[in-house]
Amino acid sequence: MKILVTGFDPFGGETTNPAIEAVKQLPDKIAGADIVKLEVPTEFNRCAEVVRAAILAEQPNVVLSIGQAGRRAALTPELVAINLNDGRIPDNAGQQPVDQPIQPAGAAAYFTQLPIKAMVRAIQTAGLPGQVSTTAGTYVCNHLMYQVQYLRATEFPALRAGFMHIPFLPSQVTDKPNMPSLSLVDDVRGITAAIAAIVAE
Amino acid sequence: MKILVTGFDPFGGETTNPAIEAVKQLPDKIAGADIVKLEVPTEFNRCAEVVRAAILAEQPNVVLSIGQAGRRAALTPELVAINLNDGRIPDNAGQQPVDQPIQPAGAAAYFTQLPIKAMVRAIQTAGLPGQVSTTAGTYVCNHLMYQVQYLRATEFPALRAGFMHIPFLPSQVTDKPNMPSLSLVDDVRGITAAIAAIVAE
Amino acid sequence: MKILVTGFDPFGGETTNPAIEAVKQLPDKIAGADIVKLEVPTEFNRCAEVVRAAILAEQPNVVLSIGQAGRRAALTPELVAINLNDGRIPDNAGQQPVDQPIQPAGAAAYFTQLPIKAMVRAIQTAGLPGQVSTTAGTYVCNHLMYQVQYLRATEFPALRAGFMHIPFLPSQVTDKPNMPSLSLVDDVRGITAAIAAIVAE
Amino acid sequence: MKILVTGFDPFGGETTNPAIEAVKQLPDKIAGADIVKLEVPTEFNRCAEVVRAAILAEQPNVVLSIGQAGRRAALTPELVAINLNDGRIPDNAGQQPVDQPIQPAGAAAYFTQLPIKAMVRAIQTAGLPGQVSTTAGTYVCNHLMYQVQYLRATEFPALRAGFMHIPFLPSQVTDKPNMPSLSLVDDVRGITAAIAAIVAE
Repeated sequence: MKILVTGFDPFGGETTNPAIEAVKQLPDKIAGADIVKLEVPTEFNRCAEVVRAAILAEQPNVVLSIGQAGRRAALTPELVAINLNDGRIPDNAGQQPVDQPIQPAGAAAYFTQLPIKAMVRAIQTAGLPGQVSTTAGTYVCNHLMYQVQYLRATEFPALRAGFMHIPFLPSQVTDKPNMPSLSLVDDVRGITAAIAAIVAE
Repeated sequence: MKILVTGFDPFGGETTNPAIEAVKQLPDKIAGADIVKLEVPTEFNRCAEVVRAAILAEQPNVVLSIGQAGRRAALTPELVAINLNDGRIPDNAGQQPVDQPIQPAGAAAYFTQLPIKAMVRAIQTAGLPGQVSTTAGTYVCNHLMYQVQYLRATEFPALRAGFMHIPFLPSQVTDKPNMPSLSLVDDVRGITAAIAAIVAE
Repeated sequence: MKILVTGFDPFGGETTNPAIEAVKQLPDKIAGADIVKLEVPTEFNRCAEVVRAAILAEQPNVVLSIGQAGRRAALTPELVAINLNDGRIPDNAGQQPVDQPIQPAGAAAYFTQLPIKAMVRAIQTAGLPGQVSTTAGTYVCNHLMYQVQYLRATEFPALRAGFMHIPFLPSQVTDKPNMPSLSLVDDVRGITAAIAAIVAE
Repeated sequence: MKILVTGFDPFGGETTNPAIEAVKQLPDKIAGADIVKLEVPTEFNRCAEVVRAAILAEQPNVVLSIGQAGRRAALTPELVAINLNDGRIPDNAGQQPVDQPIQPAGAAAYFTQLPIKAMVRAIQTAGLPGQVSTTAGTYVCNHLMYQVQYLRATEFPALRAGFMHIPFLPSQVTDKPNMPSLSLVDDVRGITAAIAAIVAE
C-alpha cells in the first residue's frame, strides 16, 4: 500500500506550519505501507493541482492531508468536506474567495473514505488527544479535502482520501494565553498512529 | 547554588502526575546549580513536613515546587500563596479541609521570592507557552507554596521559594474534548529554562 | 410571507430547552411576516414527520428551526446539514443511530437557503453575539436541518429553510464553570432580528 | 443596614462598563438594606479616594464593589485582594504601575469579610451562573478591593467589604467568537441576590 501524506506551508502570519513540519518527520514506512511526503502551498486551487500531479506520479492508494487548526487541542480527523470557499483572510497568493463554490458541478459535500473513528482510537491508544471533527472550515484546508474528493469522484475512483487537523505547536503559542498546543514529536506520533489505523482497516 | 525541586504524586483519580514525572527527568545540574529532586505526597500538612525535612537535610538556596493544574495550557509560575485550605475533593489521605487557615498565626499571603516574569520569558524563549499566574487555588498546591513561605518566614530566612503549575500530559486528555496539554519533554524543558532564569538572577 | 419556526423539547438530562422556550415567546408577526410556532420532539425521524405535517398544513415560505448547542457563546445560524446520524447519546425515544445515513438516496449535504451572514449581522446589530457555524453536528439538530432540506428537494421546491443554534440559558449553567450562556430575552431578541433579516432579503 | 455598592466606569477601549450600568439599575432597598450607589473611576488610587469619601459621607456597614472581568462566564465574588499593582494596560489616567505594592506598609493580602459562598449559592438559586474566584488580578479591580480592605484595617474597623466581578455584556461580545457574556438584567438580578445573601448573614 502506498500513502501520499500532504502538509501545508505556513500561512496567516505564522512563520511555521506544524503540518508540513510533522509530515517531513514521518518515517518512510508505517505498518508496512510506503509513505510519500508532499508539501503543498496554502493557496486555493494550486494546492489541488500539486496534489493531483503527485497522485498521477505516485499512484497512491490513500491520500491523507494534514493542516493546522489553531485553537484545537487534539488531532482531529475530518468527517466531511463541503463545496464552499469562504476565506476570512487571503491565502498565500492573495486570493480571498467569499461564498464561492469550489466546483460548480461538484456535490455539496463529500465524506471521507478513511476510518476516522479507528484513527481517533489509535491516536488515543498512543496516549494523545484525538477527536472526530465534523467541520474542516471553509478555508484552504476544507478546499483541499474537497478537491481531492472531487478528483476521486471524477478521475481516481479507487482512491481513498481524507484530512486531519493538528493543533498549534508550543512555539506558536508562547504568549497566547489559554491557547492549546501539541508538540511536533506528538504530532508525528499521532499521525503515525492514525496511518497505522488506515493500513489496518 | 543548590535548588530543591519538588513534585507531587498523582491525585484526583489520575494515575500519573506530570509534576513528579517531570521533576524526576530534570538534569542534576542546571546552569551550574545543583538540582535536588523530591517527591511529595498530595496531602495537606504532610507535604510540608516532607519538604521541611529535605530543607534541613539539603540546605538548599531555593525551593521550587511543581504541581499539576488541569485546564491550563501554559507553564505558570505562581505569584502568591494565600492562607486558606479549601478542598473541592479530599487529598490522598482523605482530608478535605473547608475554609480553614493554613497557619492561624501566619500572614494572609506570601509573595514568591522567585523572578516569575524572568521565568516566563525564559520559558517563552525556549519556545514554550508561559504565563504568570495570580492564583495557586486553595488546594494542596497553594497549601505547599504557603507552607514553604511560612517556613521561610519562621525558620529559613535566607531561602527563596516559589511554585509553578504545569498542564495535563497529552496522555491524561486523550478523550477530554478541548482540554489543553503539554508533553513531558516540554515540561522538562520549560522547568529547566525557568530554573536557569532563577540562577541567572 | 409566512415563517414556520420550530423549537426542540428538552433532552440529554436537561429539564428545559431554550429552543422551544424562545420560540414560544416570539411575536406573531415579525417585520410583516406571519410567525407560526411549532414544538418538535428531540427524536430522529419523528421530528421531521412533525415538521412535514406542519409544512403541509401551514404552507410556509420559510422554515427556521431552533436548537440548543451547549458550549456555544453566540447565536449561530448553520451553513450546512450533512447526511449522517451519529448519536453520542440516545434521543428522547431511546434511538441512538451510529454512522447511519439520514436518507440513503439523499445528497451528502444541503446548504441552507437562508441569508446566514445577514442574519449574523442583524443579531450583532441588535447587540448580541452572532457567528456563522459550519457544523450542526451529527445529532438530532443536524438531522432535522437535513430532513427539511430533503423535503425541500423532494416535495417543496419553493421552500427556503435553515437552522440556528442557541446557547444554554443561564439557569442551565449555574454551577458549570466557564460555561457560556445567553438569556431567554436575548434569545428571543436575536431570533427576531435574524427573522427580520430573512424577511428583508 | 446600609450597603455602598460601587461600579467602575468604562476602560480598555470599551465604551461601556457593565459594572456601573448594573449598579445604577439596582433597587434602592434590597432585603431591607439601604443601597447607596457610587460610580468610581478606573484609576489607581483615585478610585480609592472616591470610595473613602463616600464611606465618610455615608457610613455604610458594607462596601460591595463591582467590576468587569472579560472572559469570565459567571458572577464571581472575590476571595482575596493582594498588595500588588501590575497593569497590563494603562488606567484611565494613563498610569501603568508595574510590580508596585499598593500600600508599602500594608498586609500582603486581605480576605473579604463577605459571605462569598452564600453569595454564590444565592446567585445560583436565582438561576444564574456563580463561582467563587480566588484572584481579582493585579489591575484596578484588585487595587480597589485591596484599598477598601486597607481602609478597614486602618480607619473603619467595623466595615465589611468585598468585590464581585461580572462578565462582559452581550453587546460587548457581538463579534468576539466563543466569548461568554451575561445580560444587564441578569447582572442586576445576580447582584441583588448576592446582596440579599450579605444581608441575611
